Amino acid sequence: MSDKHLSSQFDADLNLISSKVLEMGGLVEAQITRAMEALNTLDAAIADQVISEEDTVNQMEVAIDEECSNIIARRQPAARDLRLLLAISKTITNLERAGDEAEKIAKRVKRVMEDGAARTLNIAEIKISGDMAVSILRRALDAFARLDTAAAAQIVRDDKAIDEEFRAFVRKLVTYMMEDPRTISAGLEFLTIAKAIERIGDHAKNIAEFIIYIVKGTDVRHKSRDALEREALS
Amino acid sequence: MSDKHLSSQFDADLNLISSKVLEMGGLVEAQITRAMEALNTLDAAIADQVISEEDTVNQMEVAIDEECSNIIARRQPAARDLRLLLAISKTITNLERAGDEAEKIAKRVKRVMEDGAARTLNIAEIKISGDMAVSILRRALDAFARLDTAAAAQIVRDDKAIDEEFRAFVRKLVTYMMEDPRTISAGLEFLTIAKAIERIGDHAKNIAEFIIYIVKGTDVRHKSRDALEREALS
Repeated sequence: MSDKHLSSQFDADLNLISSKVLEMGGLVEAQITRAMEALNTLDAAIADQVISEEDTVNQMEVAIDEECSNIIARRQPAARDLRLLLAISKTITNLERAGDEAEKIAKRVKRVMEDGAARTLNIAEIKISGDMAVSILRRALDAFARLDTAAAAQIVRDDKAIDEEFRAFVRKLVTYMMEDPRTISAGLEFLTIAKAIERIGDHAKNIAEFIIYIVKGTDVRHKSRDALEREALS
Repeated sequence: MSDKHLSSQFDADLNLISSKVLEMGGLVEAQITRAMEALNTLDAAIADQVISEEDTVNQMEVAIDEECSNIIARRQPAARDLRLLLAISKTITNLERAGDEAEKIAKRVKRVMEDGAARTLNIAEIKISGDMAVSILRRALDAFARLDTAAAAQIVRDDKAIDEEFRAFVRKLVTYMMEDPRTISAGLEFLTIAKAIERIGDHAKNIAEFIIYIVKGTDVRHKSRDALEREALS
């Protein structure tokens, strides 16, 4: 009976920390959505809001990580429970970095607003890849909540599309800049924004890989996509 | 006596895994040094060597991380031992990423070699910051080996200089590109190289912060530099 109680309490600890990860993830997702909104509307107030949220996300990372190591020390978990806690510790680093990228986008939006040449550039690819990044991060958090490895494998696949959108944009940017050197400064700001979005996709992909690790016990980082999918769907 | 033996074996485990981290770090440091050599000499063979080493570094990350979780499951460490293992698990992610940046530099060097306009650009800041990044990573590994928090605090301080070198280079690059739009493609390659170096500095800084966490038990990420230094030197 005492064992059962201990185990239930442990389950409650794991559920609580998982829900905190999802809460942090929700905040970061909202930050990225707002950063893209600031870019679309060139609204400095929205950009400032994104920037002001950074500290909350940072503090959540530190608090969840401390809770992770406390649970490991107190409960001495093994197998899947330990993998969950180790994966959470790494997932929150990826979430915090994704939040940093949102902040970077917001800061660059404010600079772009002061650059008259910026409005002459077509940044359709940035907006497309921004939407993709928000969607992929949301799906990574959903897959984490459900520990859904099939969804995780799909996320790893979809991250490639964001990378391709980024490369297409860089090629277009070079053409713009060569045609009109007055766009170079603004072009570099947009390049930084596009790169930030591409990295948000990478963070979502990393989180997806941790989900496969938690459930299957296999570290799929650096594996081929085929090997990763076999593992996820096994 | 049995306890003593167990503890000695545990110490041996911790020493072994720490030495593997240093081995991985040495490989990454050599990769970055060679990537900078490839840039200085525009030698494709050296660049190819850097690229070929990526897989070894990746495999070391996976192996050390598995060993980390095995030790945690088997030994059920607490306090400083647990912090060491959790910090190692994050340190190797930073080392692997620093190796990725070395690979990225090597790939961009190969592209730059095919661009006639590249030779007209003065990339002194890249070379300076590349040397700084190699040095800061080496010092981070040394500080990890000795668990030297004063050295770790100095590394966090010195990372700022690499960031400043990067920003100075970006400003210069914009001027070059505006003066001669034929340099735009090469300029963007050099920008990516400079950014990769700046990120290597960030990884070294992250490792330094983990050292303070291991020794002092305080998570100094996101703290002000003053607060970090007080903690490191307390």
